[in-house]
Amino acid sequence: MSQPLKPTISTDNRGRFLGVLAKQTEAPPPIWLMRQAGRYLPEYREVRTKAGGFLNLCYTPALAAEVTLQPIRRFGFDAAILFSDILVVPDALGQGLRFAEGEGPILDPIFDVTDLKRLDPKSTASVFERVFETVTRVRQDLPKETALIGFCGAPWTVATYMVGGRGSSDQAAARVWAYNDPHGFNQLIDLLVEVSIAYLDGQVRAGADALQIFDTWAGCLPDDQFEVWVILPTKRIVAELKQRHPQVPIIGFPRGVGATAGWYLQETKVEGLGCDTAMSLVLMRELAGIGAVVQGNLDPLLLLAGGTHMEIRVKQILDAMNTVPFIFNLGHGIVPETPPENVARLVALVRGEGV
Amino acid sequence: MSQPLKPTISTDNRGRFLGVLAKQTEAPPPIWLMRQAGRYLPEYREVRTKAGGFLNLCYTPALAAEVTLQPIRRFGFDAAILFSDILVVPDALGQGLRFAEGEGPILDPIFDVTDLKRLDPKSTASVFERVFETVTRVRQDLPKETALIGFCGAPWTVATYMVGGRGSSDQAAARVWAYNDPHGFNQLIDLLVEVSIAYLDGQVRAGADALQIFDTWAGCLPDDQFEVWVILPTKRIVAELKQRHPQVPIIGFPRGVGATAGWYLQETKVEGLGCDTAMSLVLMRELAGIGAVVQGNLDPLLLLAGGTHMEIRVKQILDAMNTVPFIFNLGHGIVPETPPENVARLVALVRGEGV
Repeated sequence: MSQPLKPTISTDNRGRFLGVLAKQTEAPPPIWLMRQAGRYLPEYREVRTKAGGFLNLCYTPALAAEVTLQPIRRFGFDAAILFSDILVVPDALGQGLRFAEGEGPILDPIFDVTDLKRLDPKSTASVFERVFETVTRVRQDLPKETALIGFCGAPWTVATYMVGGRGSSDQAAARVWAYNDPHGFNQLIDLLVEVSIAYLDGQVRAGADALQIFDTWAGCLPDDQFEVWVILPTKRIVAELKQRHPQVPIIGFPRGVGATAGWYLQETKVEGLGCDTAMSLVLMRELAGIGAVVQGNLDPLLLLAGGTHMEIRVKQILDAMNTVPFIFNLGHGIVPETPPENVARLVALVRGEGV
Repeated sequence: MSQPLKPTISTDNRGRFLGVLAKQTEAPPPIWLMRQAGRYLPEYREVRTKAGGFLNLCYTPALAAEVTLQPIRRFGFDAAILFSDILVVPDALGQGLRFAEGEGPILDPIFDVTDLKRLDPKSTASVFERVFETVTRVRQDLPKETALIGFCGAPWTVATYMVGGRGSSDQAAARVWAYNDPHGFNQLIDLLVEVSIAYLDGQVRAGADALQIFDTWAGCLPDDQFEVWVILPTKRIVAELKQRHPQVPIIGFPRGVGATAGWYLQETKVEGLGCDTAMSLVLMRELAGIGAVVQGNLDPLLLLAGGTHMEIRVKQILDAMNTVPFIFNLGHGIVPETPPENVARLVALVRGEGV
């Protein structure tokens, strides 16, 4: 933590980032990357090993804060994002999260409404406190010119893991439960709305400047289910957070929803819209035209590949978005095999440095 | 094959189906379901066991024809769809397809342009002949009032399996190759365009009334890649088929593309658009407004769940689509656990029988 911070083009990256979320246009746009703190960085892998695994790393504030800061030191991103995981919430509820090597996260699945008794919202406080302490530490050590983003998983996406017990390609377990027993499933969603509000509220109190709600599996639902399980719960979370912290902008990231993002924006009232890789630049401009601050959407696999093709595409994105409030990001998280030098090159390209 | 065929509401289901594809509106709409010949039917499982596995079943015309006809006998769908698999094409090219129990399809992956030498378009003829013989047999045994749909996988989707060697959640192998060596990857796509044309052409000559091009993984690509790997190859296939068989309508099914479907439609000139489960009814109506015949999009998991919720949703879909040319279908294939009685109920609901 004693390494010097990389100088950045502005002394007020935080102001630029929050300015864009207040619907200003900035050139060059602010930039941060989903999973910017992660396995592609050797210094991250070192700390993770020291921590004894991913979950220990999430729950040890000094180490979680350290890995949150690592990409800021290397690349001078305009915003840091809390290092954590969307499944901290079910773990805090008592569902027993573990990470099996090469298998991803595993939870003891919730099969029906009687299983909800296994979840205790009161048990979340002690777990959430460690996350809030991480946020406090990051805010202390982060340059005050860098923004800090807190986050949670959206109730629908978190529920798909809680019900399925693990990731799946079609989220069938949660979808079938929601069809067979919508009232029972809604109890799970209600619980997640309640604890997500407490979780985000605590992150803001600890120093987060902005929030992002990750809805990774929003794109699998028919419109009627999308309204009930994605739009309404997100709207409730946003409304309550706006009540408590009107100055804190919220970015929604309903992955894979295409043009339905317009409906999501209007209903949920998030300021920012995370755009996945498949969203066309034409649609992103259209959504900006109805008042959204758009964020995205370089293909993480193009960041992995690097080279001329990446340079051309970055320029395409910048050219398409240079007249609207826009935050440069990927369309999904950085993949672990990404060479860090490609990330450095990307930041230079976006900022017009040494191009 | 001596069982009586289920009586249907019209003596000319084929005419109704093809009429809708010629942009007529039919009430009730014609109906068929993706994977209507499949594991949810006990009579299918019996034939598959007799055949000694999935691939043998695909390559034994008498048995493949039999399972193609089974759902027509049970439910009287307006159209039958050839029983086959999109990976018959790479298998015919010599890539060595096998199905491992519980693992899905496995191919010997193609890693780069030098591996393309392993593929021989001349070797496809003997394999394709068996498929064409299946089509001929189905056409002979199918009531002449029932339409017959032939199909292939779109080059992009087939390539993702050929390069990855199996299914994956992000199709990363093909996407990274396409970034690192677009010219080499394009040779694979060109080859697939060429053999897909021959494959579809042969199906039409053998008796297919209409064609569907399945692009299951179209939804993972940024717009620039979507144009090159989805739109352009599909457009070439459609143009050549239209040249040879102007009377045969083509349905494109670019899964997961949302509003980008409008661009796909305009460029590829397919008559029909398969709509996945996540496409909103509002967007489907909009696409119908620009001249598409829309097909879809009941959630297969709702067909699995059945009950009141299914009845309500079917009515919603019918009400939303009753003034546009529309073919009732699912948004993705029937899942194997689906009770056949739910399928019977669905057909009755769509046809307004016994509701």
